[in-house]
Amino acid sequence: MNNSFVLKGAVIDSKNQDTLRLTKQGYVVCVNGICEGVFEELPEEYQDLEIRDYTDYLIIPGMSDLHLHAPQYTYRGLGMDLELLEWLEVNTFPEESRYADLDYAEKAYELFTEELLHTTTTRACVFATIHKEATLLLMDRLEQSGIKSMVGKVNMDRNAPDYYCEKSAQESVQMTREWIIEAKQRFKRTIPVITPRFVPTCSDELLKQLGNLAREYDLPVQSHISENLDEIAWVKELCPKISCYGDVYHQAGLFGNDVRTVMAHSVYSSEEEIKLMKENQVFIAHCPQSNTNVASGIAPVRRYLDDNLRIGLGTDIAGGFSMSILRAMADAIQVSKLRYRIVDETQKPVRLEEAFYMATAGGGAFFGKVGKFEKGYEFDAVVLDDHALKTPKELSLRDRLERIVYMSEQCQIIDKYVEGTHLLL
Amino acid sequence: MNNSFVLKGAVIDSKNQDTLRLTKQGYVVCVNGICEGVFEELPEEYQDLEIRDYTDYLIIPGMSDLHLHAPQYTYRGLGMDLELLEWLEVNTFPEESRYADLDYAEKAYELFTEELLHTTTTRACVFATIHKEATLLLMDRLEQSGIKSMVGKVNMDRNAPDYYCEKSAQESVQMTREWIIEAKQRFKRTIPVITPRFVPTCSDELLKQLGNLAREYDLPVQSHISENLDEIAWVKELCPKISCYGDVYHQAGLFGNDVRTVMAHSVYSSEEEIKLMKENQVFIAHCPQSNTNVASGIAPVRRYLDDNLRIGLGTDIAGGFSMSILRAMADAIQVSKLRYRIVDETQKPVRLEEAFYMATAGGGAFFGKVGKFEKGYEFDAVVLDDHALKTPKELSLRDRLERIVYMSEQCQIIDKYVEGTHLLL
Repeated sequence: MNNSFVLKGAVIDSKNQDTLRLTKQGYVVCVNGICEGVFEELPEEYQDLEIRDYTDYLIIPGMSDLHLHAPQYTYRGLGMDLELLEWLEVNTFPEESRYADLDYAEKAYELFTEELLHTTTTRACVFATIHKEATLLLMDRLEQSGIKSMVGKVNMDRNAPDYYCEKSAQESVQMTREWIIEAKQRFKRTIPVITPRFVPTCSDELLKQLGNLAREYDLPVQSHISENLDEIAWVKELCPKISCYGDVYHQAGLFGNDVRTVMAHSVYSSEEEIKLMKENQVFIAHCPQSNTNVASGIAPVRRYLDDNLRIGLGTDIAGGFSMSILRAMADAIQVSKLRYRIVDETQKPVRLEEAFYMATAGGGAFFGKVGKFEKGYEFDAVVLDDHALKTPKELSLRDRLERIVYMSEQCQIIDKYVEGTHLLL
Repeated sequence: MNNSFVLKGAVIDSKNQDTLRLTKQGYVVCVNGICEGVFEELPEEYQDLEIRDYTDYLIIPGMSDLHLHAPQYTYRGLGMDLELLEWLEVNTFPEESRYADLDYAEKAYELFTEELLHTTTTRACVFATIHKEATLLLMDRLEQSGIKSMVGKVNMDRNAPDYYCEKSAQESVQMTREWIIEAKQRFKRTIPVITPRFVPTCSDELLKQLGNLAREYDLPVQSHISENLDEIAWVKELCPKISCYGDVYHQAGLFGNDVRTVMAHSVYSSEEEIKLMKENQVFIAHCPQSNTNVASGIAPVRRYLDDNLRIGLGTDIAGGFSMSILRAMADAIQVSKLRYRIVDETQKPVRLEEAFYMATAGGGAFFGKVGKFEKGYEFDAVVLDDHALKTPKELSLRDRLERIVYMSEQCQIIDKYVEGTHLLL
């Protein structure tokens, strides 16, 4: 399909973290997969481009899901009565170990990719399992879907059951290297990302070597941080000399700075950790639904926003059961209200504008110039139909967006573009 | 349609508050609108009844929504950045005042009823507005839908804007009496319920006379209680002599005992209030989503369950944006986890079994013998299709229910019965 065109309709993107740009009737221009901007009148120079008419629909930037586990899709919404560490033992490790079986992996990843395709997500940071082959299979499916993603073969060489643990740091790194080389050859839209599961399951040696790999192959990094109080206590026990959880990654060269890094959760980051994340430009993947479901708590997102930390949203399948970033926006606002009421009334709730920013430009920045309709941005767009949300009231464009966020399951995704490519839904 | 039949399929209802009764393949028998029970083999005596085959689907009791505002349906999911008292001034009163216009009311109530029909709700306690005619119109729509409901013309004679306030207690009561008489004549499935909005907007005189009306016409009562801290402080200011918020209703004869009463919220009920609710068998409508959206807080539902208070769930449209009691179940579990983590770790989260109980038998009890498939219960049933929730894993029947609760928007309601009547969806 042609990579240069114009979309016509009601357009919403973020001016900045605090402000929406609402264009009631506008034109978004894409030339060779790159955005030229939003215009109320179509400029002369673009008059020859094909116009795709989405009048009455909403056109928003594609959303970024900064944290989800593809193999856990099979048990989303199940076994929801456990906290993190027990959850891993009971739900996660047994299920993830099944992906050694490529037939199972194929069935499961097919379903995962199919659902992801039908969300507003155009970019995703995805955890796979420890298995090289199954991870390549997942990358293949995502590549074919048209979604742009970063996918990680998981590393873990300690504190995991025998049936789901790599034998040594050396073996883990060797397998990871082979996987990186093959993935780089095979895929264009699907980038390998260095993925230590989290500190408790990764030896110092493994972390150090993964830091080296990230530099050697110029790859991003993803992991988990400060999600749960028992987990943090465990990390302190395992690494008594470090100043904070994030410092373990930092010492291994896996915490931002020259290596693009996203860390999921940060529910209980200390002052020192927050400072380190800010200095190193580490992205936070805020996963409000997961933090609720495994009873971790509520991350201090108001603080992160006001301090201008880099932050986006994650669904964290299957800590979260919903793969919708629209739902994650609603969840982020909702839990922030409870935090405001119960924990700290000086920390005002997250506003719609801020949630939208995190879902689009905030998370998108992890992928480059993504998540806005500004000139020079990669052209990711989603077209939404909100006609099923009936009301006799007259609604502003912001009203329509607010309703879509809260009642997203009643809306339809009409079309989806990634870097100017129209995906087949 | 025939009121005696057998439904065949996977059947779930509550044995009690803590335990589900899971019948993998069973028969639920309805004779003249009344349930005869669930059977693994169909007993001889029912062999002649028509069998409706829902093999592969789930059959659950109809759910009860103990608290929602029909006129607020028009602005669900809008203006979600306000707390209770401001919310009423900015969102609620201006919108509810529009229902003086019957054309507007007709459009709005048509949409409301249509969506309610397509939920798992078979019974509902509904607030209308202060307007007699519009309330009758709503009752008429609900009556035609087949849902059984209690609907209240709202009373309020103080602390409300001139454009939406009854002129005096006397006028309010007179209008209410006329409305009751007409409603009792016209409707069979739709019962008038005495509905003082809440203490701040109702004078002592009005409350006292409404208590008399409830007795005179043998009607139930619904209102709000202890939702928000500013509201509670206001009630204390208005009624300095009372021992707790609930005592104001109690003094007026509007708080359980001989008058069936449901109170929405109880987020901050004092020990005294809890004691009074328990003694008087007052039902609590727990509305977790609304309490989150207007930043009220998290009700201590674990306490209410363990103390055997009467409790069901409410969507509280439009404090809540979702009209689904399945969603309210998920919300109830989720906020209870945050309360456990943040407020009081001795108060364990609400379990799936308990949420299901509140949604079915717990709330259903407000309507009589409703919400279970036991012999003698009114036959309310919902048939659910969960095939869209794909997974390669084998699932138990409890697993299937858990997924439906969390991902209800991806499931289909196939059929719905109220007191043995098959509703046209």
